[in-house]
Amino acid sequence: MSFEQILQALPDYVSDLHGKGKVASYIPALARVPAQKFGVSLHTLDGRVHCVGDSEERFSIQSISKVFTLSLAMNMLGEELWRRVGREPSGNRFNSLVQLEYEQGIPRNPFINAGAIVLCDILLSHLHDPKQALLDYLRVLTGNPEIGFDEEVARSEHETGFINRSLANFLKGNANLHNEVEAVLDLYFHQCALALSCSELARATLHLANGGHSPSLNESLLTASQVKRINALMLTCGLYDAVGEFAYRVGLPAKSGVGGGIVAVLPGEYAVAVWSPELDPSGNSLAGGAALEYLTLMTGRSVF
Amino acid sequence: MSFEQILQALPDYVSDLHGKGKVASYIPALARVPAQKFGVSLHTLDGRVHCVGDSEERFSIQSISKVFTLSLAMNMLGEELWRRVGREPSGNRFNSLVQLEYEQGIPRNPFINAGAIVLCDILLSHLHDPKQALLDYLRVLTGNPEIGFDEEVARSEHETGFINRSLANFLKGNANLHNEVEAVLDLYFHQCALALSCSELARATLHLANGGHSPSLNESLLTASQVKRINALMLTCGLYDAVGEFAYRVGLPAKSGVGGGIVAVLPGEYAVAVWSPELDPSGNSLAGGAALEYLTLMTGRSVF
Amino acid sequence: MSFEQILQALPDYVSDLHGKGKVASYIPALARVPAQKFGVSLHTLDGRVHCVGDSEERFSIQSISKVFTLSLAMNMLGEELWRRVGREPSGNRFNSLVQLEYEQGIPRNPFINAGAIVLCDILLSHLHDPKQALLDYLRVLTGNPEIGFDEEVARSEHETGFINRSLANFLKGNANLHNEVEAVLDLYFHQCALALSCSELARATLHLANGGHSPSLNESLLTASQVKRINALMLTCGLYDAVGEFAYRVGLPAKSGVGGGIVAVLPGEYAVAVWSPELDPSGNSLAGGAALEYLTLMTGRSVF
Amino acid sequence: MSFEQILQALPDYVSDLHGKGKVASYIPALARVPAQKFGVSLHTLDGRVHCVGDSEERFSIQSISKVFTLSLAMNMLGEELWRRVGREPSGNRFNSLVQLEYEQGIPRNPFINAGAIVLCDILLSHLHDPKQALLDYLRVLTGNPEIGFDEEVARSEHETGFINRSLANFLKGNANLHNEVEAVLDLYFHQCALALSCSELARATLHLANGGHSPSLNESLLTASQVKRINALMLTCGLYDAVGEFAYRVGLPAKSGVGGGIVAVLPGEYAVAVWSPELDPSGNSLAGGAALEYLTLMTGRSVF
Repeated sequence: MSFEQILQALPDYVSDLHGKGKVASYIPALARVPAQKFGVSLHTLDGRVHCVGDSEERFSIQSISKVFTLSLAMNMLGEELWRRVGREPSGNRFNSLVQLEYEQGIPRNPFINAGAIVLCDILLSHLHDPKQALLDYLRVLTGNPEIGFDEEVARSEHETGFINRSLANFLKGNANLHNEVEAVLDLYFHQCALALSCSELARATLHLANGGHSPSLNESLLTASQVKRINALMLTCGLYDAVGEFAYRVGLPAKSGVGGGIVAVLPGEYAVAVWSPELDPSGNSLAGGAALEYLTLMTGRSVF
Repeated sequence: MSFEQILQALPDYVSDLHGKGKVASYIPALARVPAQKFGVSLHTLDGRVHCVGDSEERFSIQSISKVFTLSLAMNMLGEELWRRVGREPSGNRFNSLVQLEYEQGIPRNPFINAGAIVLCDILLSHLHDPKQALLDYLRVLTGNPEIGFDEEVARSEHETGFINRSLANFLKGNANLHNEVEAVLDLYFHQCALALSCSELARATLHLANGGHSPSLNESLLTASQVKRINALMLTCGLYDAVGEFAYRVGLPAKSGVGGGIVAVLPGEYAVAVWSPELDPSGNSLAGGAALEYLTLMTGRSVF
Repeated sequence: MSFEQILQALPDYVSDLHGKGKVASYIPALARVPAQKFGVSLHTLDGRVHCVGDSEERFSIQSISKVFTLSLAMNMLGEELWRRVGREPSGNRFNSLVQLEYEQGIPRNPFINAGAIVLCDILLSHLHDPKQALLDYLRVLTGNPEIGFDEEVARSEHETGFINRSLANFLKGNANLHNEVEAVLDLYFHQCALALSCSELARATLHLANGGHSPSLNESLLTASQVKRINALMLTCGLYDAVGEFAYRVGLPAKSGVGGGIVAVLPGEYAVAVWSPELDPSGNSLAGGAALEYLTLMTGRSVF
Repeated sequence: MSFEQILQALPDYVSDLHGKGKVASYIPALARVPAQKFGVSLHTLDGRVHCVGDSEERFSIQSISKVFTLSLAMNMLGEELWRRVGREPSGNRFNSLVQLEYEQGIPRNPFINAGAIVLCDILLSHLHDPKQALLDYLRVLTGNPEIGFDEEVARSEHETGFINRSLANFLKGNANLHNEVEAVLDLYFHQCALALSCSELARATLHLANGGHSPSLNESLLTASQVKRINALMLTCGLYDAVGEFAYRVGLPAKSGVGGGIVAVLPGEYAVAVWSPELDPSGNSLAGGAALEYLTLMTGRSVF
C-alpha cells in the first residue's frame, strides 16, 4: 500500500477506538477539545506530503515540545548537558519524585518532567529571551511565523501545576536548578502550551529522519550524532511507561504528549505526526498509537 | 543521685562531645550559634525547677514546635485529623518524598516535615490568625508574654526551603493541602522559627507528663487520651530516624529540633528540655541525647 | 477496677469483634484454629496470677518467639549484634525486600522477618544445638518441661515459606548469613512453631517487667540495659506496621504473632498475654488489641 | 570502509581499553578467563562472514542466552507470555528485588534475571526435557552439534546464586513460578552456562536481522512480529542499565552477558557478536561496546 492509501484508510481503521480512551482533563483548555478529532500528516524526505483528517488544526503539543527544547539545549551545552540529566529509561511514571530522590536530583532523562524542567533551566541560563528563542526556532522549523503559545493553556498549567512545582523545588533544593523556580516553570509551562498542527509537527521533525539536515531549509540543524542521540532517547524514553510496548507495536523513535499528539520518524524515509485526544492509561494517544502501528505494519518498514 | 546533683554533673559529663557533632548550617542564623552552648531545665510535677548552663537563653526550637501545632490541631479537628496524616514511624529521612509519593500524599506522621505542613494547613483553615494563635498558645504555656518568632530565621527558612516547598506542592497536587502553598509555608516557617529557652520549653510541656493538666495554670489543656497520643507519637516518631536508638538509650517520649533542642517527659514525674547545637548524623543534638541518657540512667527511671 | 474484674469483663467486651477479623490461613494448621478462641493471662510482679477464657490452651506463638531468640542472641553476642541488624522501626511491611535491598542486607530491626532470620543465624553459629537450647530456655522461663515445637506448623512453614526463603537467600547473597540457608530457615520455622499458652507466655515474659529479674526463678536472666533494649524495640517495632497506633491505644511494649497472640509488659507491674486468632489488616490480633486497650484504659496505667 | 577493513582495525582500536574494566569474578570459571581475549564475528544476510581475533573460542554467554529462551517461550506460549512478565525497561539494576516487590511478582521484562527465571519456569512447564531442548535449539541455530553447557560454570552459579535464588523464591511466593524453585534454577543456571563462540553466536542470531528467516537453514524460525518484539526488547532492555547510552552510541538491538559477550543485529543487513571479558560498571563488555560503536560509526549505519 502507498502512503496515500494507508493514510486514507486510517480514519476508518481507528474509528472504533473512539470512546475507549480519555481526553486529558486536568485543565479546562484540554478537557474541552472534541474527543473525535483525528489528523495525520506524513512528510517524506523526497518531498512528498500526505495528510488526512484534522491535520491542519493546531493543538497543544505538550510533552512533544521536549524534543525541541532538547535540540536547543544540546546545541548550547553539548556533552556537558549530561552532567545534569541522565539518558536512561526511568521505569517509573513520568513525574515520579521517587526516582529523583534516589538519584539525588539528577532526572533520569530529558523527557520525564523533571528532566525537561532542567532543560528549561539551561535555556534560561544561556538565552536572553528563551521563550522568544523557542518560538523563533519553531517558526523556522515549521516555516510558519505564526506559531505561538496558547496562553490559556500556559496559565492553566501554571495554576494547576503543583506536582511540576514540587519537582522544580526539589531540583532547586538539590542544586540542579540555577534560576528562580518560577522563571523556570514559566518557560516550562509555555513550552507545554505550544500549539502546532500535525502538518507543522511533521515538517518540524523531518530533519530527525535525515541526520539533522532539513530538506525544506536545505540546512543542517543538528549533527548526525545529535540526531542519533535524540532518536535513541525517543525510542527508549519517549512514550512514558509504554516505551517497550510502543517500540514493539510501532518500532519508530517517537514522542507523545497528553494533548493527544505523537510524532515519529523512520530514519532515511519520513516524519509523521498524528493527533487524537483520547489517551490510553499510559497517557499516550490511543488512536494515534494504533494509526502508527497500522502505518508500520502496512509499509512493512520500521527500525527493526 | 538527686535531680540537682545530676544536672550539676551534666556540663562536665558532655564536655568531651564538643566538636564531635555539627551545628546546623543551612541558614546563617543557625550556623552562627556558638557550638559550645549547653543548657538543661527540668520541671517536676510537684513544682521543683532545676536548671543548669544556658537554660534561660532562647534558641530556635525548629521541629520541637510540631508538638505544639499538633496539640492545637488535635483540639480543633479531633480524630478527623488522622484522615490527613498517619500515625506510624516513617523508617525514612524526615523530609522524604519517596514515602509521600507511595502513600499518595498522606504523610506518615505529624512529625515528619510533610506531616507538619499538613498540620499548618489545618490551623490555617480553622483559625482567623494562626500565627498569633500559636504565639498566644505558647505565651500561655510558658507564662511568658514575650515569646516570639525569630523573623530572621523565618525569612531564611523561606529563602532556602526548597525541599519543604517541594513537599507542600506535592501535598497540594495530591489534594491534601486546602490553602495556598505559600500561606501554609509561611506559617510552617514561622513555627520553626519560634524561639524559646530550655526553661520555657520544659514549662510548656509539663502538662504532657501530667495527663494534660498544667500544674502552673491549674488547668487541663489536653485530655488524657490526647496526651497519650502525643507521647506515643513522640516515642515512636519524635527523633527522626534515630527513634529506636533513643527509645533504648533514653526511654522517654521526646521531640528534637535541628536547633539543638530536645524536650522529653517522664509521665507522672517531670518534663525536661536540653539544648546543645551540635548535631549527630541523624539531626539530633549530640550532647542533648547524652545528657538525657545520663539523666535516665542515674535516676534509674524511664518508661521501660 | 481490679485486674480480676477487668479480666472477667473482657470476653463480653470483645465479643462483638468476632467475625470482623481474619484467622491466618496461609498454612492449614493455623487456618483450622477456631476463630472464637479467646484467652488472657496476667501475672503481676508481686505474684498474683489472673486468667480468663482459653488461657491454658497452647497456640502457635509465631513472631512472639522473636522476643526469646533476641534475648538469647543478646546474651551471646552483646553489642556486636547490632552490626548485623538495625534497631529502628521499618515503616514497611514486616517481610519487605525493598527495605533490605536499599540497606544492602542489614535488616532494620530484629522483629521483621529478615532480622529474625539473622538472629537464627547467630544462634546457629554460637550454639551446638540451637533448637534444643531454645526449647530449654522456654522450659526454664515457663517452668514447664513440656514446651515443644508444633512439628506440623514447622513443616507447613517450611513448605510455604517462599518469601522467607527469598529473604534468607538475599541475606546470604549480601554476606549477612553465615550458615546454610536451609539450616537457618529450619531454626526460624521451628521458632515460629513454638506452642505456648497465654499463661506460659505471661510467665515467660514477666522478667521484662522487672529489669530482667525473674520472680519465679528468683534469678536475673537479662541485665536492666538488655531489658530496656527489648522493651524499646517492642514499643517501636513490635506490632508490624501498626506500631504507632498500638502505642497510642495500649501504650505498652508488646509483641504480636499471626497466630493471634500478643504479649505486653507494664514495667514495674505486670506481664500479660492475650490470644484471639482473628487478625486485623496489619496482622495483629483484633480482639487481643482491644483487650489490652481496655486493660490500660480501665487501670489508667500505661507507659505514657 | 568495508566490514573486512573495520574488523581488521578493531583489535588495535580497542587495545587501550584493556585494564580499564573488570573481568567478572563472582565465580572462578569466569574470573580466570584471560582479560585480553577479544573476538568479533559478523555475518551478513547475503552470506558473507567476517571474523577477527578469538572469534572461534567459546565463552560463557550468560545473559545472552535469554534471547534464545525468550524465542522458545514465545513460540510455546504466544501472547499469554506477557501475563507473567512485562515488556518495559526497568530503570533499575538487573537483579533488583525492589521492582519485583512493587510490581507484586511480575518482572518488568524477560531480560532482567527475574524475568528470565519466569521464562525458564515456562519452558519447564511445556517441555519434557527443557535443557536438552535448549541445547537442540542452539545446535540447530549454530549448525554445530557440539554446543553444550559448561558444567563447571553451571555448578558455580548454583553454589553462589543466592540473589537469583532469592528472586526465584520471591516469584514462587507471589505465585509466578509453577515448578519447584530448584528445578527452575537448575535450568536457569545451565542456560547461563551455555558456551558459544562469537562465530556461533552471530550465526545463531542472524535470523533476527531477517524477519525470522534463517538464511543458513533456509527456514523461518520466528514470525516477523516475534522478531520485532525481540529486537524491540533488546533495544529497550538488553544492556542492563546502560540501555539509553548503548542505543545512542551503537544504535542496534543488542544483548550482553557478564561473560563479556554482546550480540547485535542491524535488521536487513547483519548480525554481529563480540567478546572481551572486561566489563564496564554497568556489567557490559567495555571493549565490546567500543567495537560495536566503531562498527556503526564507520559504516554510518544503525537503526537511527
